[in-house]
Amino acid sequence: MDLKIPLTQKKRVVIIGGGFGGIEIAKTLRNKDVQIVLLDKHNYHCFQPLLYQVATGGLEPDSIAYPLRKLMQKIPNGLFRLAEVRNIDLKNQKVHTDIGDLKYDYLVIATGSMTNFFKFPKEVYSKMMQMKDIPQALNLRSFILENFEEALLTSDENTKEELINISIVGGGPTGVELAGALGEMKKNILPKDYPEIDFRKMQIHLFESSDRILGTMHPENSAKALKYLKNFGVNVWLNTMVTDYNGDELTAQDGMKIKSNTLIWTAGVKGNTVEGFAPDCIVGGNRFLVNEHCQIKGFDNIFAIGDVAAMVTEESPKGHPMVAPVAIQQGEMVAKNILALIDKKEPQKFRYFDKGSMATVGRNKAVMESNGIKMGGFIAWLAWLFVHVMSLVGFRNKISVTVGWLYNYFTYDRTLRLIIRPYKNKED
Amino acid sequence: MDLKIPLTQKKRVVIIGGGFGGIEIAKTLRNKDVQIVLLDKHNYHCFQPLLYQVATGGLEPDSIAYPLRKLMQKIPNGLFRLAEVRNIDLKNQKVHTDIGDLKYDYLVIATGSMTNFFKFPKEVYSKMMQMKDIPQALNLRSFILENFEEALLTSDENTKEELINISIVGGGPTGVELAGALGEMKKNILPKDYPEIDFRKMQIHLFESSDRILGTMHPENSAKALKYLKNFGVNVWLNTMVTDYNGDELTAQDGMKIKSNTLIWTAGVKGNTVEGFAPDCIVGGNRFLVNEHCQIKGFDNIFAIGDVAAMVTEESPKGHPMVAPVAIQQGEMVAKNILALIDKKEPQKFRYFDKGSMATVGRNKAVMESNGIKMGGFIAWLAWLFVHVMSLVGFRNKISVTVGWLYNYFTYDRTLRLIIRPYKNKED
Repeated sequence: MDLKIPLTQKKRVVIIGGGFGGIEIAKTLRNKDVQIVLLDKHNYHCFQPLLYQVATGGLEPDSIAYPLRKLMQKIPNGLFRLAEVRNIDLKNQKVHTDIGDLKYDYLVIATGSMTNFFKFPKEVYSKMMQMKDIPQALNLRSFILENFEEALLTSDENTKEELINISIVGGGPTGVELAGALGEMKKNILPKDYPEIDFRKMQIHLFESSDRILGTMHPENSAKALKYLKNFGVNVWLNTMVTDYNGDELTAQDGMKIKSNTLIWTAGVKGNTVEGFAPDCIVGGNRFLVNEHCQIKGFDNIFAIGDVAAMVTEESPKGHPMVAPVAIQQGEMVAKNILALIDKKEPQKFRYFDKGSMATVGRNKAVMESNGIKMGGFIAWLAWLFVHVMSLVGFRNKISVTVGWLYNYFTYDRTLRLIIRPYKNKED
Repeated sequence: MDLKIPLTQKKRVVIIGGGFGGIEIAKTLRNKDVQIVLLDKHNYHCFQPLLYQVATGGLEPDSIAYPLRKLMQKIPNGLFRLAEVRNIDLKNQKVHTDIGDLKYDYLVIATGSMTNFFKFPKEVYSKMMQMKDIPQALNLRSFILENFEEALLTSDENTKEELINISIVGGGPTGVELAGALGEMKKNILPKDYPEIDFRKMQIHLFESSDRILGTMHPENSAKALKYLKNFGVNVWLNTMVTDYNGDELTAQDGMKIKSNTLIWTAGVKGNTVEGFAPDCIVGGNRFLVNEHCQIKGFDNIFAIGDVAAMVTEESPKGHPMVAPVAIQQGEMVAKNILALIDKKEPQKFRYFDKGSMATVGRNKAVMESNGIKMGGFIAWLAWLFVHVMSLVGFRNKISVTVGWLYNYFTYDRTLRLIIRPYKNKED
């Protein structure tokens, strides 16, 4: 069945995914001579870099999400459909979705990435928590709080230890920021909420298989972040790969076992590809192999951008880093290239402008680097706050995150410790 | 199995329910010579009067909820347990819960009320939406938005009408406030989000079985509220009882049929009693029959307060209204009476101080009455805002609701149109 979409004389650009890249394309094509159809399985854009704040009760989910329909209000030549894409019919140039089929003239795949559990079988990774979207972040928030409630009920010290310990696998920005936030909670918040628990016994573990955390940053910054984490009471295990997990206890490469009912896996992502393409269109990390115009190998009118695309060049032999700025810059370029192709002009080649990177490690502490400048501590932390607030989509979100953070900062509190949907002991 | 609770020499007061009444007792008993144990099946207090704002995307759920553990931080002689009460063992003075048993010296039942579907069988009422707690309000938000998304997919006018119409049964404050908020959404927000839908065809119906809405208020205020609702495009059906519903179409008493995929039932509540008591302890509306000290019939040390209690006197032959001020005032009195009983003093008798009542009907419009003064329009609306912000528990909630409302007011917007957990087409 075909999706009910008004037919126009204009070329139709179908965008799959309303993340950073997808919305950049829609915005750039605003009022141009094309019809835009944006598809997403959620009706909101999610600001993923702050998901860990939702998981740790620092921000409400509504503050980091933005309704895609509100975005499309400002784009009169655009439409939104809440749809999950099943596959692409390349021969007939159609996108198959759960709500019907849709013809495209130009197709942009901006579906981002998903958690990569590598070789773990399902019975192992299904016991791990992940944090790639809002429901998962809320599940993690509920899970941790439910474990603390449960810890009050037992007098068995082993069980209690399992319930209050938290392990994070992966020393990238997500793992480090989450560990820092949990360290802050352990220090300032949880002991007040659970005076009956001895918090000296609560352990926060961070496992990193390489020899430093924040591996994509400068080693000096890795060392600084490590120091900050230690000050927040996080146990960082470098050169330590987690090899097994049974839900209560994890096993590391060297045989070490650690009790932990909560294990959060942040050690890998892979492209969230769409079905219908030949295997040679997809390279390592499950990403679409694209040329310098972001066209998928073998197609002039199909593009992939952001996390799901690997532009393999001499400069970037493994593709670009899976971060928002790449997706945004590729989105802008692809939008312009589509217009160029329609006008039979030469498309641009992508050149990544790396603004630098940053990571926060709890209260007053962050590391950043940009154009050879490295910084740590309070100034880097302020810069982190500023960049993140300004990057949020929507004025209301900017205000509510600022107000929330000011409150959290001055009260040493995170009031959103609400189990709104139980995860561990689901109601229905 | 007994719940692990530290034993003290003090008398133990067990409070079931962290609503307005329950938390008032805990606050009043703060630092007194008793041990307080507060039980609730959620770990937060919910400000129920604003649930309809969560359902209509005006406020985030986190703003109207407050963590009970944070409340208990300030009450050193108190403990909280996340527990669902199964029944009371009156003989052994024990509360049975899903996490274990607990002995009490004094017991206060403050479990509030639940939706009353009266004689409807389950296959009928399970198709109706309700709005008594946060998950239900979020379900309603998701359901309405999912219906609009679905309406875009059909070219059948009948189906489309079913999907975009909304019916509310019950012309009390909840029904009226919800209808007003939906009327505002229909006027200012939804047409921008769904330009493909003809909103002249969207009908919002409010059914009231008596001859006026807001039946507990002065007839002049009922008339005013009716006028406001009509201006917001709400169809109000007075003297009209809804007698059947099949999920797509409702039937009224006079045989009238109205297509509506969304039916929200606000036409009745009943006490959320706890099992273990003789039938003659429970009166009409499923409430515990209590004396003027709020003691349940036949017990000196067991109290019921708020919605779940019916203090049947000459002044209040059907018990007091099921509103927050009654619960709060009874909570304060019961706390003092427990201390009096411990000291072998005479307990007080309850006298309800009625501060008046108010209801808002969308933007700039509300009605209120207090001590014989009646007011409507903009001033009443400002008063409504002020009273509700000041009644919220917690400073952060006060700020975030104020900021949210200011934003909504000046932008004519409600940005929280997010389907975070699909309800209609559940993911798992």
